[in-house]
Amino acid sequence: MKISTEELIKGIQSGNKRLIAKAITLVESKKAEHRIQAEELLKKIMPFTGNSIRVGITGVPGAGKSTFIESFGRLAISNGKKVAVLAIDPSSAINKGSILGDKTRMEELAKEENAFIRPSPSSGFLGGVANTTFETMLICEAAGYDYILIETVGVGQSEVLVADITDVFLFLKIIGGGDELQGIKRGIMEMVDLIFINKVDSENIQKAKNTRLELKRALDFIPPKEKDWKVSVLLGSALNNEGLDEVYAKIDEFINLKKKTNRFEEVRTQQAEKRFEYWVQEYILAMMKRNESLEEAYLQHKKNASAMVSNPSTEAKLFVENFLNKKF
Amino acid sequence: MKISTEELIKGIQSGNKRLIAKAITLVESKKAEHRIQAEELLKKIMPFTGNSIRVGITGVPGAGKSTFIESFGRLAISNGKKVAVLAIDPSSAINKGSILGDKTRMEELAKEENAFIRPSPSSGFLGGVANTTFETMLICEAAGYDYILIETVGVGQSEVLVADITDVFLFLKIIGGGDELQGIKRGIMEMVDLIFINKVDSENIQKAKNTRLELKRALDFIPPKEKDWKVSVLLGSALNNEGLDEVYAKIDEFINLKKKTNRFEEVRTQQAEKRFEYWVQEYILAMMKRNESLEEAYLQHKKNASAMVSNPSTEAKLFVENFLNKKF
Repeated sequence: MKISTEELIKGIQSGNKRLIAKAITLVESKKAEHRIQAEELLKKIMPFTGNSIRVGITGVPGAGKSTFIESFGRLAISNGKKVAVLAIDPSSAINKGSILGDKTRMEELAKEENAFIRPSPSSGFLGGVANTTFETMLICEAAGYDYILIETVGVGQSEVLVADITDVFLFLKIIGGGDELQGIKRGIMEMVDLIFINKVDSENIQKAKNTRLELKRALDFIPPKEKDWKVSVLLGSALNNEGLDEVYAKIDEFINLKKKTNRFEEVRTQQAEKRFEYWVQEYILAMMKRNESLEEAYLQHKKNASAMVSNPSTEAKLFVENFLNKKF
Repeated sequence: MKISTEELIKGIQSGNKRLIAKAITLVESKKAEHRIQAEELLKKIMPFTGNSIRVGITGVPGAGKSTFIESFGRLAISNGKKVAVLAIDPSSAINKGSILGDKTRMEELAKEENAFIRPSPSSGFLGGVANTTFETMLICEAAGYDYILIETVGVGQSEVLVADITDVFLFLKIIGGGDELQGIKRGIMEMVDLIFINKVDSENIQKAKNTRLELKRALDFIPPKEKDWKVSVLLGSALNNEGLDEVYAKIDEFINLKKKTNRFEEVRTQQAEKRFEYWVQEYILAMMKRNESLEEAYLQHKKNASAMVSNPSTEAKLFVENFLNKKF
């Protein structure tokens, strides 16, 4: 049964989780009629969005991201906040939810009245980076959530995607075997605003401090992302609820600084512009893909270019001319 | 007077510098009729391209890039090689050649029969990264140049552009005031294959060694670009011809390694694919720009998106629909 846009909006604004979920399913849909309703919905809720703190969270598998989110989320709720959790799952488009399994790991948080948990499929039309996580976030904001925690499993370009739609980017690290920086993906250290070394206890505290030292040294070699901000490396244990207060306070401090220096609004404006540009590309690619012969042509021209049969620019021009002569 | 494509090709293959220059001017032109001839030319020379070592060179102003290129170029020529120098100049589109002034700094090299020096304007159609340096390089390769040295002044995205079309990326560094990594642009250290600390003499050799130590430590924190290659930090003085042999040998070593592991061909193929994708975007943007009302619409939709008047994706969709309904 089709639910009207008005009903969805009323549901979102009254915090009805079933209707929030329906609205998210609507914006995730690629069907043309759904997209039309989704855009109508998004347009109407726009004035009620933008008031959350958007937190991106990354870390290797095993770093304890879900446990961290559960503990952090419950802390925020105990401070009177509402928390939405979105998890970017590059595989969900294929097997419909490898992260859904993880939801059991957030059982306690899921039980909370003021928490909302949702996996977010990551599937650009042609392998692009644009997905609907941003729009899902807008819905959660309109529903009054104060913190939007966006988890990424760190496959492909998903960190870039998350960094491009959040206000603060948090990196969860576990203690390594001496070679602390092994396994850290290229570019991650330049995106990060805050690092939390997780799973620290009385037995490995010295190792944890060494890890912190290594990370701090590495950070000294990286030009700062925000010039007035020095990335902190905090220690703790999400499982034992240790060190979370400090993370919470640091995020607050960072957001306040960004607001004071106008960087908060400035970065959000840049992010929105970038998203617009992403989507222009995505839609153009989607138009191409809709036309089978055009997609074939794209691949053929690309192949000619990569084999240096002819100049990449020439191949691109031939393709674009072909593309623009089609009817859509 | 128009020169025929055949005449240009004959000129290129016989190493006639005047005709090589004419061919480059042709591929740089944005006039539709010139583009047609340029593409014809490029198609025909394609089988004779690809045989050079493509070297990207970056460094802050004052690092001694021109002097380095002059000394390195003369060394290569003394080893029986032919050397072409292209300088990417982001400002040349505006003031027609701030780097042309620099040519006087390469006076000795310019006199050599086996050297060819040319500034290369950097001007994507709508601020994009694609330019004609790659095509200029193809012409130089068809003319038999063994080394193509591409200098970037390091403004904007020019290093990325250069790294994306070269086989080896060289970073020229001068000795700093203790804070060695100040002023190094974000991302540069991840692009680099080889570092040369320039302007080293008997008086500052200890400082130079400290700089090397700092750089090496920084490199330890950066995941390697080529997994079998450790970035070397070499010391020397381009002005006094010291240390250039070592750079020459290291470049050789790197290229041989890449050829042995098939990375040489693999990376070139990826680069050509990427260039194709760049150019598809550039041509689409160029088509847009040709249509004034469309360009206005683009800016208006982008503004709506950044002000969050409506969802960036919605604005992008409206624009793309508008775009595809136009006649070209």
